Amino acid sequence: MDDRATTWMRRALELAASGPWPDPNPRVGCVLVGPDGSLVAEGWHRGAGTPHAEAAALAAAGDRARGTTAYVSLEPCSHTGRTGPCAQALVDAGVVEVVFAQPDPNQSAAGGAEVLRAAGVHVTGGLLADDAEALNARWTRTIALGRPLVTWKFAATLDGRSAAADGTSQWITGEAARADVHALRATRDAVLVGTGTLLADDPRLTVRQPQGGPAPDQPLRVVMGLREVPVDARVHEGPGEVLHLTTRDPRVALVCLWERGVRDLWLEGGPTLAAAFLEAGLVDEVVAYVAPALLGAGRTAVADLGISTITDIRRLVLQDVTVIGTDVRIRAVPSDDSTTRGGSRRAAPGTND
Amino acid sequence: MDDRATTWMRRALELAASGPWPDPNPRVGCVLVGPDGSLVAEGWHRGAGTPHAEAAALAAAGDRARGTTAYVSLEPCSHTGRTGPCAQALVDAGVVEVVFAQPDPNQSAAGGAEVLRAAGVHVTGGLLADDAEALNARWTRTIALGRPLVTWKFAATLDGRSAAADGTSQWITGEAARADVHALRATRDAVLVGTGTLLADDPRLTVRQPQGGPAPDQPLRVVMGLREVPVDARVHEGPGEVLHLTTRDPRVALVCLWERGVRDLWLEGGPTLAAAFLEAGLVDEVVAYVAPALLGAGRTAVADLGISTITDIRRLVLQDVTVIGTDVRIRAVPSDDSTTRGGSRRAAPGTND
Ligand SMILES: NC(=O)c1ccc[n+]([C@@H]2O[C@H](COP(=O)([O-])OP(=O)(O)OC[C@H]3O[C@@H](n4cnc5c(N)ncnc54)[C@H](OP(=O)(O)O)[C@@H]3O)[C@@H](O)[C@H]2O)c1
Ligand SMILES: NC(=O)c1ccc[n+]([C@@H]2O[C@H](COP(=O)([O-])OP(=O)(O)OC[C@H]3O[C@@H](n4cnc5c(N)ncnc54)[C@H](OP(=O)(O)O)[C@@H]3O)[C@@H](O)[C@H]2O)c1
Repeated sequence: MDDRATTWMRRALELAASGPWPDPNPRVGCVLVGPDGSLVAEGWHRGAGTPHAEAAALAAAGDRARGTTAYVSLEPCSHTGRTGPCAQALVDAGVVEVVFAQPDPNQSAAGGAEVLRAAGVHVTGGLLADDAEALNARWTRTIALGRPLVTWKFAATLDGRSAAADGTSQWITGEAARADVHALRATRDAVLVGTGTLLADDPRLTVRQPQGGPAPDQPLRVVMGLREVPVDARVHEGPGEVLHLTTRDPRVALVCLWERGVRDLWLEGGPTLAAAFLEAGLVDEVVAYVAPALLGAGRTAVADLGISTITDIRRLVLQDVTVIGTDVRIRAVPSDDSTTRGGSRRAAPGTND
Repeated sequence: MDDRATTWMRRALELAASGPWPDPNPRVGCVLVGPDGSLVAEGWHRGAGTPHAEAAALAAAGDRARGTTAYVSLEPCSHTGRTGPCAQALVDAGVVEVVFAQPDPNQSAAGGAEVLRAAGVHVTGGLLADDAEALNARWTRTIALGRPLVTWKFAATLDGRSAAADGTSQWITGEAARADVHALRATRDAVLVGTGTLLADDPRLTVRQPQGGPAPDQPLRVVMGLREVPVDARVHEGPGEVLHLTTRDPRVALVCLWERGVRDLWLEGGPTLAAAFLEAGLVDEVVAYVAPALLGAGRTAVADLGISTITDIRRLVLQDVTVIGTDVRIRAVPSDDSTTRGGSRRAAPGTND
């Protein structure tokens, strides 16, 4: 590929970066370039339910699409979702060459390159593929797993207590750490707690802004467990939707959430639910807020994991350690082979659009 | 004070820094300067049982001490210890002026300035006092408390477990963290564990060098509790002394250790002993090695502290957070008013020499 191709692909990646995350769909950009090397049209994907990047660019180009080369940051899809397959749309519009970056990791959507080639379009894949994959790292991961990514957050003292002996836990960490939780919550598309936490703490689970009010975009709030969620629970207050999953099976919960388009889940516990996800190998990231404080007794951050001896210890790998106000935030991930796929790829196509 | 005085005091501080720590005594340097402004002699204190800095400088000067000005990094002592009061020795040697940096915080030893003035010596105190105090920060603190400083070290998982359910705990942290423990142990003059840890783990408690062998200078190894220390316990192996304190009272233990010259104590637990020291307000620093790992059950790092509700949480202040190999080291100190004096100042004079 020559320098001009790389330049156009960089532009496609720039456009892609304008898209939203979390979203059921990846962020994709598309640039149409005429035979004389001039820009004809651009497009990017603005999130599930809106046109794909290719469709947006084709719409902007109209008849001028004929004879162009399309630079797309992700392999054009070949499946019929809410918007029809992009590979076919490119063919129909008379695009003569397609250069894409990341191959589509979504088995149900892949095959676009073949559709294009069969129609006589010249196709090249892999240009700046690493950059494209980095842009959609979390999406690529969630597609590969076939279930939402799960981030388990907890707050505890230096001696691992999440609440005092009488159950009180407000507050273990300082204001800055709590603000950081809200900021990270806002980057996920759903927040999950067990009925135990709901009934004990009656949390709102909304994302509040530093100024105090609720943020405009709220993650889906999800409660899991068989007990009823009281009608006057505070989780019902405030903007956004609330979902009650009447199951205790983490895999079932993840399939339901996947089908609703959830890709990036923030698990706030409590200890019982956290243990259930950990035991099932369904935690992809741990975010621990450790307060420099001691309690000596009280509830621990996680319930029994069925580990009885040190050789069975569940090891994580440090990602980063940051002092947040008066507390320490430790992010760690399980070693690669210890998480499992909880959903199934078959669940994807219907919603991945 | 003029620039020359400051220059001589800097030299006295340099000499002081050659002294040993931990040691029952502070690190002190002394410079004798003739009436013509030339250096006559230098001396510094090489640790308990050896001459004080002033005595060393006077010995080096001999008759040439007469008419000199003495620059000393700490107020000369006025009490009779193993080496006799330095203030009187300076008078006897014919020193006409004394400039010192840090005033002696040791009530039993202070008063040197007055002795000198009464004998007609010109005395100025406080020159570079902050530098001098910084040099002896830990000694100043231990004198002010009238007991050894106590650093409690523990290793635990992210969920606060120090051992798995079956009691196994080797190893929670990685090699680098364990080497760091040995390096920090080596900077203290005694290592303390309870009989519980001794009987459970049979530790050597020696400082091992990175190459594997024991370090030449070993901290005093101390076991505390009423049960007997088995004659074949591994703590008896290796170089250095072992002390068994047959008490369960942390205050009594600290008085005994103070009388043996211990100023900087490394408390390695276990959880019962740590809780006893914490409850008595006798922990000055916490060094926690937190492994990014989960156990979900097992022994916690500290036993019950008598705290039942969140408002009674024992808060610490972060000192530093460092990634050590695969683990995180968190150093924190109690807020100033929460530690107490465990010994009594009366215990000091006999040994502070
Ligand atoms: N410090 C922190 O970061 C933090 C975070 C959250 C909570 N907490 C504390 O945790 C405490 C609540 O603890 P918790 O363990 O009861 O809360 P939880 O884990 O939120 O809820 C446990 C409940 O969830 C249901 N459940 C759902 N999936 C389950 C499964 N796979 N296995 C078993 N039960 C399942 C069960 O109730 P059903 O009978 O309804 O099915 C169970 O009793 C509160 O005191 C709260 O303050 C602390
Ligand atoms: N991860 C770590 O950093 C770490 C460090 C150390 C130990 N550990 C683990 O801790 C476990 C041992 O726990 P532990 O609590 O039994 O150990 P411990 O605190 O070392 O010893 C407790 C014993 O010390 C005596 N004692 C001394 N002062 C006392 C006081 N003020 N109050 C009560 N007892 C006092 C008592 O025995 P007497 O009846 O003899 O008086 C008591 O049973 C081992 O499994 C070890 O591996 C872990």
